Amino acid sequence: MRLGVCYYPEHWPESMWEDDARQMKALGIEQVRIAEFAWSRIEPTPGEYDWGWLDRSIDVLGAAGLQVVMCTPTATPPKWLIDRHPDILPVGADGRPRAFGSRRHYDFSSPSYFAASQRICTAVAERYGKHPAVAYWQTDNEFGCHHTVVSYSPAAVGRFREWLKARYHTIDVLNRAWGTVFWSMEYRSFDEIDAPVATVTEAHPSHRLDYRRFASDEVARYNRMQVEIIRAHSPGRPVAHNFMQLFTEFDHYKVAADLDVATWDSYPLGALEEQWFAPEVKARWLRSGHPDFASFNHDVYRGMSKLPFWVMEQQPGPVNWAQWNPAPLPGMVRLWSWEAFAHGAGCVSYFRWRQAPFAQEQMHAGLNRPDNRLDVGGNEAAQVAGEIRTVLAANADANAAIRSKVALVYDYEAKWLFEIHPQGADFHYPRFAFEYYSALRALGLDVDIVPVDAPLDGYCLIVVPPLPVLPTDFAARLASSGAQVVLGPRTGSKTQDLQIPANLPPGALGSVLPLRVWRVESMRPNVTEAVRLLNNPASSEADGFARHWRDFVESDAADSLDVRARFADGHPAYVRSGAFHYLASLFDDALTLRLFERIAQEAGVATMPLGDSVRVSRRGALTYVFNYGDATHTLADVADDAFVIGSHAIEPQGVAVYRTR
Amino acid sequence: MRLGVCYYPEHWPESMWEDDARQMKALGIEQVRIAEFAWSRIEPTPGEYDWGWLDRSIDVLGAAGLQVVMCTPTATPPKWLIDRHPDILPVGADGRPRAFGSRRHYDFSSPSYFAASQRICTAVAERYGKHPAVAYWQTDNEFGCHHTVVSYSPAAVGRFREWLKARYHTIDVLNRAWGTVFWSMEYRSFDEIDAPVATVTEAHPSHRLDYRRFASDEVARYNRMQVEIIRAHSPGRPVAHNFMQLFTEFDHYKVAADLDVATWDSYPLGALEEQWFAPEVKARWLRSGHPDFASFNHDVYRGMSKLPFWVMEQQPGPVNWAQWNPAPLPGMVRLWSWEAFAHGAGCVSYFRWRQAPFAQEQMHAGLNRPDNRLDVGGNEAAQVAGEIRTVLAANADANAAIRSKVALVYDYEAKWLFEIHPQGADFHYPRFAFEYYSALRALGLDVDIVPVDAPLDGYCLIVVPPLPVLPTDFAARLASSGAQVVLGPRTGSKTQDLQIPANLPPGALGSVLPLRVWRVESMRPNVTEAVRLLNNPASSEADGFARHWRDFVESDAADSLDVRARFADGHPAYVRSGAFHYLASLFDDALTLRLFERIAQEAGVATMPLGDSVRVSRRGALTYVFNYGDATHTLADVADDAFVIGSHAIEPQGVAVYRTR
Amino acid sequence: MRLGVCYYPEHWPESMWEDDARQMKALGIEQVRIAEFAWSRIEPTPGEYDWGWLDRSIDVLGAAGLQVVMCTPTATPPKWLIDRHPDILPVGADGRPRAFGSRRHYDFSSPSYFAASQRICTAVAERYGKHPAVAYWQTDNEFGCHHTVVSYSPAAVGRFREWLKARYHTIDVLNRAWGTVFWSMEYRSFDEIDAPVATVTEAHPSHRLDYRRFASDEVARYNRMQVEIIRAHSPGRPVAHNFMQLFTEFDHYKVAADLDVATWDSYPLGALEEQWFAPEVKARWLRSGHPDFASFNHDVYRGMSKLPFWVMEQQPGPVNWAQWNPAPLPGMVRLWSWEAFAHGAGCVSYFRWRQAPFAQEQMHAGLNRPDNRLDVGGNEAAQVAGEIRTVLAANADANAAIRSKVALVYDYEAKWLFEIHPQGADFHYPRFAFEYYSALRALGLDVDIVPVDAPLDGYCLIVVPPLPVLPTDFAARLASSGAQVVLGPRTGSKTQDLQIPANLPPGALGSVLPLRVWRVESMRPNVTEAVRLLNNPASSEADGFARHWRDFVESDAADSLDVRARFADGHPAYVRSGAFHYLASLFDDALTLRLFERIAQEAGVATMPLGDSVRVSRRGALTYVFNYGDATHTLADVADDAFVIGSHAIEPQGVAVYRTR
Repeated sequence: MRLGVCYYPEHWPESMWEDDARQMKALGIEQVRIAEFAWSRIEPTPGEYDWGWLDRSIDVLGAAGLQVVMCTPTATPPKWLIDRHPDILPVGADGRPRAFGSRRHYDFSSPSYFAASQRICTAVAERYGKHPAVAYWQTDNEFGCHHTVVSYSPAAVGRFREWLKARYHTIDVLNRAWGTVFWSMEYRSFDEIDAPVATVTEAHPSHRLDYRRFASDEVARYNRMQVEIIRAHSPGRPVAHNFMQLFTEFDHYKVAADLDVATWDSYPLGALEEQWFAPEVKARWLRSGHPDFASFNHDVYRGMSKLPFWVMEQQPGPVNWAQWNPAPLPGMVRLWSWEAFAHGAGCVSYFRWRQAPFAQEQMHAGLNRPDNRLDVGGNEAAQVAGEIRTVLAANADANAAIRSKVALVYDYEAKWLFEIHPQGADFHYPRFAFEYYSALRALGLDVDIVPVDAPLDGYCLIVVPPLPVLPTDFAARLASSGAQVVLGPRTGSKTQDLQIPANLPPGALGSVLPLRVWRVESMRPNVTEAVRLLNNPASSEADGFARHWRDFVESDAADSLDVRARFADGHPAYVRSGAFHYLASLFDDALTLRLFERIAQEAGVATMPLGDSVRVSRRGALTYVFNYGDATHTLADVADDAFVIGSHAIEPQGVAVYRTR
Repeated sequence: MRLGVCYYPEHWPESMWEDDARQMKALGIEQVRIAEFAWSRIEPTPGEYDWGWLDRSIDVLGAAGLQVVMCTPTATPPKWLIDRHPDILPVGADGRPRAFGSRRHYDFSSPSYFAASQRICTAVAERYGKHPAVAYWQTDNEFGCHHTVVSYSPAAVGRFREWLKARYHTIDVLNRAWGTVFWSMEYRSFDEIDAPVATVTEAHPSHRLDYRRFASDEVARYNRMQVEIIRAHSPGRPVAHNFMQLFTEFDHYKVAADLDVATWDSYPLGALEEQWFAPEVKARWLRSGHPDFASFNHDVYRGMSKLPFWVMEQQPGPVNWAQWNPAPLPGMVRLWSWEAFAHGAGCVSYFRWRQAPFAQEQMHAGLNRPDNRLDVGGNEAAQVAGEIRTVLAANADANAAIRSKVALVYDYEAKWLFEIHPQGADFHYPRFAFEYYSALRALGLDVDIVPVDAPLDGYCLIVVPPLPVLPTDFAARLASSGAQVVLGPRTGSKTQDLQIPANLPPGALGSVLPLRVWRVESMRPNVTEAVRLLNNPASSEADGFARHWRDFVESDAADSLDVRARFADGHPAYVRSGAFHYLASLFDDALTLRLFERIAQEAGVATMPLGDSVRVSRRGALTYVFNYGDATHTLADVADDAFVIGSHAIEPQGVAVYRTR
Repeated sequence: MRLGVCYYPEHWPESMWEDDARQMKALGIEQVRIAEFAWSRIEPTPGEYDWGWLDRSIDVLGAAGLQVVMCTPTATPPKWLIDRHPDILPVGADGRPRAFGSRRHYDFSSPSYFAASQRICTAVAERYGKHPAVAYWQTDNEFGCHHTVVSYSPAAVGRFREWLKARYHTIDVLNRAWGTVFWSMEYRSFDEIDAPVATVTEAHPSHRLDYRRFASDEVARYNRMQVEIIRAHSPGRPVAHNFMQLFTEFDHYKVAADLDVATWDSYPLGALEEQWFAPEVKARWLRSGHPDFASFNHDVYRGMSKLPFWVMEQQPGPVNWAQWNPAPLPGMVRLWSWEAFAHGAGCVSYFRWRQAPFAQEQMHAGLNRPDNRLDVGGNEAAQVAGEIRTVLAANADANAAIRSKVALVYDYEAKWLFEIHPQGADFHYPRFAFEYYSALRALGLDVDIVPVDAPLDGYCLIVVPPLPVLPTDFAARLASSGAQVVLGPRTGSKTQDLQIPANLPPGALGSVLPLRVWRVESMRPNVTEAVRLLNNPASSEADGFARHWRDFVESDAADSLDVRARFADGHPAYVRSGAFHYLASLFDDALTLRLFERIAQEAGVATMPLGDSVRVSRRGALTYVFNYGDATHTLADVADDAFVIGSHAIEPQGVAVYRTR
């Protein structure tokens, strides 16, 4: 548990640097990230490096006792480089290169940019790799931001063809895997294959899915290049990248596999505004963020980080980039910080030290205001710094790793597949995964979010949001885990090649779950279907309702199948066979919570219903309680002397931490 | 009355073909459509045909006693052809060629594609034109699907200039006809004229309308080329094309004039989702389709088919291509089938024999599931096959032609003109034509849908939805028909050149209807205008309301004009002069129905108010009743022994057929 | 006070011209605008002018005693010119040239078009500059219509670089002014700078603002070229341009500075439909227009016109170009005409003499119908002509200039800046300026709308809607004016270079208003914040609510700051210091009105609350009252013999004019 900050010495007169460093230290900051957008200052003219200012700024930070997180500056290639190599620019779906003038204006597949990146990364890593103040590295910045993963450039298409050759070996295998016979889309060679864009109607879904897989792999390859250069020149310093909240355009597990630390950039208010939430939900959590949103991301990135994950950028006040940008309620910056630690974070690093008065993000707050007075967020960070010292002093295992009884399987390809091949226009995978997660959290459960190939032993309850493509051994691993397994609709509905399984969905899960999905329907937003629980005393009332989607389920082994809920028209809505629970639809929040509570009990996992605005997390011997609501929450059953932070009465935006054992 | 199916032998192992053919026959299928997307299998390499598989599949079908509907494969030119002739690709309004990778990626005006189409059509027609199993032909597939009628390619512009020369002869005539003087848009030669696209503000409406007429004519020309090749090589086999539901981007009458059979592809649930209906209407008829939608299309295509029209593709279960895709209620596939026959169909052909597990339409149901079990739709098709035998055995004239007392005039140019020149953003011609049709159907009336140049004698009631451009003799033909004539607003509002008639609307109808529309207004969706019927006892209540549009009507012969309804501000809303009834607005559904009922009575046409969910059709000596609702409908006044199918109590999704005489 | 009309002799047979001119004169028309779209008739072939028809039409008008407003025809370059110089076409944000086929298809920065314009303007001005019938000139037509101010052509980019050089002199100055260091966007020379378009995410806001300033300056330069040519050849004739209602894409003050008369085109119903108003507001004022909309524009253009402003085009009936186009209520054309005169207009000129039956605007009414009968608007124009004679005869100072006690500061850069850099997606500057104006008008106040550099002495109340960039001397001028000053939120929030002021907002106003905006938040449409007035008796009720935006205010001199209202969370919502009133949010209409009423009283300005549908204006010794509502409005306290037009009871759509002294 420690605090960090993002700092841009190039934004400020050199005369301010020493004072800035001293203030950081005084506030309780331990690490400082720098230089991720500084290429034009590092190399103002082609081949002529200006290291002086950067040397001095690192020296100043180091002299103040701060650890530097050094970045490669590749997110912002300078104008002279673009003018020399216009093929660096990514190409949009409209066939036009995207222009210089903001950031991330590069194509992951551009050979020019790959070479230029190798050169600048090597230069930076050589110069600072062994500098005593440099403790960590960050590659680039927010891969994929502003829809930059997928490019339709000639370079990308060329590399896609190579990628296809490596995957399918012969064109006949590809034609069969994709089913190109359908509309005479058969190819005679890999060189006939273009990007799946600008077609008359939707391009072939397998073609599109492979293009997304390819584009994702290009990100991993590009990051790996940087990691290897850094490791060669800066041995022993962990390498990180700062991922984005709920970002899904590339497979983060694959990129994280090459890193030491997975970090993410947490902007709870901006996210609330920009994500799928309904307008009334956005108003409800306007100045606090959704109680499960940051947590969901903490658990996602914890699940892929070798060292404890970090929040690399923590929202310190209003941001500039959402459609509307409210100010956090007093206390929220503190709450968010503690929530990250409660979920296992090693560091919470605020973006940014001081609000710069110019350019695109001039309206984005920092810990300090543009007039160099400490802002609300800065005060709360100072409070957190003090509280960290209290917690660490009192609890030896405050930095313990987290291990939960509940796992939620989260997958990136699932997002792409359902986006490409939705069948119902609002089938938004991250939303459904989040709704399952949110129900678990409202039951007071700690949740590990894991990839499909994660070890599953040791979990009591495994929840699988709609997962179309199953790894070969998935059914076996689920079965041998001993856990109760909840499967969302559409699970096992596709093969690796995006075809319907020959035995119908849930495909390979049929071996452990004796059912077939013989028909599906998607439901428009103003349509729901009543659901009745079968253990319910006879009544004419529905127990809840289904939304978005229905799987129609049949079985050759009806005896071994326990139908626990039915739709109004009699079709099964929820069936159980042994440890496997199949949900044939996406239910309303209350019904989802009710079903999860029952299954958790069957799994032997104790639940603690919390309502919608209080959340609990456990790390080591400490329990953390967070109040997102607008009324005081009172904890019963906690001894007075157990509290490390706070007390029984948790005010709105309040935090309590107490010893559990 | 017979059943058919669409079949793709190229999708399945040859080992399955014989069993498939046997099962089709057993189920009651008589005709099988094949090969419309098979170009890449017929000619896998330029100039090298692979006929073997197609020969064998036709032989297998023929041997099973099935008749083949053979298709030309031009809807899906293969990749090698596109690579050799990139000018085949149509060009979008954004100036970019649309890409290979789905279907219909061709420009109707491309000389390369015209020649390539002639070649492949000749090859297919030569090989199978006299094959004993080949009974019918289909040209291409769904002309215009995915917005492919209009292209902005250089080839299209070149042919447009020729089309203009043929229409206007001299540039001065064109300049006057269009009124190009308005904004100095005058042309000095036809070669100065471009496509009406990408202009600073809206392009000239006459220019745009002519471009749409030209593009429509290009479709007819292209189809005619195929028909002539087929007729030359396959004499005696009727030639069909499968049109789309409510598709209006080309003049279907002109294309149908070259065919023997007009067929259409009926997807009632997909259509409901994708058309203009309000969300609550979409929810109301979610799993049955709108009770008048398929019927409207049956009557449209019956009106242009020389032989009895067909449903070439009948929805058999959920589809994949709407935004949301619900499953039909049990019984709907049967109901839809019978509804087609009741409206005069010669054949109902299901799309498709078996759901293929791959490519764009893998989620589109068939009569059989991907695991080769018979699906719900398959069972219902089998039921229909049995019922057809019953009906045919009992009724000699079950296949009789239909002749109605009521005609509705339906026009394609009207759609283009109002789209180009709406004056009110929601003036959607097909919707208004459908609303008039729906009111007539709710009154229990059979309706012929006819073009503006159809013979009108013999009808008692002729309903004309907003028809801007009138043929020269239209007023005379209406007057001499002896029918009562209902005219929607904006009728006669434009000349052939898209100008306001010199005598003001309704233009040439002024000779039979002594009124002028001296002003109009369009009404935004949250504005209506109350309407009072003048024969109503004095009350402060409105009898209904006007929507979308108002014509302001004046007359030099007020004595001969019977004002039957007025708007709240006193302007006439409905006037009658002799047999002509002019509606100066678009009324709410209830008022439209009330007016139509009164006029039908004046026309001597008996009405039978049915409400919104039961519909009746008559063919030969049989009356067909369909229940789209969710309550049992009871027929009174039908003798017990008159029923051929069903009985007095018609369950939801039920059908009854009884002898009328 | 006089009437005019827009006339297109080229649309009609020459045989109609004399009768048209006679009818105009008879109706009371005094001036006729012609030829603004006639280039293709003036120069049908390159270099060959056809003056004959235009000579004759001007002679006919002059012979009838009408004054001609002669136009340059540059809004519609003919096709042959475009084909010779395709670089004339402006380039859209998508990088594609916009096409010929409507109007305004030219790039203000095109050297070809500048030269061609000089040539045609010189030709027209030489021929008609001294013609006795030609009394006025109009340059071009509606600069900027259809989004034609900003072009992304190479010519525009080239001239932008020159513009930047002239502004910043060295690239280092530009880099610092913009803050390009932020994302390595630093430039090494002006030639590296492109247009701020097609970037990966938002382009740099300072870059974007400068591009808008540049594009605006290009319009002024282009207009100035025409004005200079006209003045050289037609001395003594005032030169006008017809601006558009609430159009903001260029700085109208700068263009008007080169003109003699600022005129505008008034379409109250089309504007209502196309502007920001909520659907229920659009329905409320459907057939009258919003009571403050035309007035706002009158006051905007009066404020920039050297001679009395005109309405160059007055809506005479339904138009064609809004999404929905209702018909004005009877009397509205008269009311709008009088409202213009009441606000100081020298002329109201109707668009157009007769509705042409062809081309894009065939559904746009004129004073006469296409069948050459006088339309409703024509009758009302005739009524106005008669009333003008009455008014002029009875009141020597009816044409007096208007001078108000209240000024509203209105700025064009503010619109661009907030559009580029909104921070809240619905921060629409003209709407907020209009809401302030509307509140003042509902208090019965006459308002001058003035630029930021206007003299402010003599005003009692100065209202400043959100004004981000302050001129250097603005604070001093406000302070020395002696007026009470109301400042909207975000005032002084940016420097000239679009940076946050070093002392925080309100920047330079801090010298007279001891506060700092230390934080802001934008509020989504379904979020408001309660506001309490501090002088209110204690109650739990809010006095109103804040919308869209909140400034968080602090002060080092709290004693000198009178906090007059607070938000529910305690932050100040409205503070006063001396004559300066700072509003920290945008309040609901009722609260805004209540605050303005109180401040007006403090300013010694008498108010007269009028409700939402009656409006009053004063010019010379006359008071004008307009009734936009649907109930009769009764004037008390006016002597019977004071009425020049109308009487105490003003019917809906009615006008009354009475002598005040």
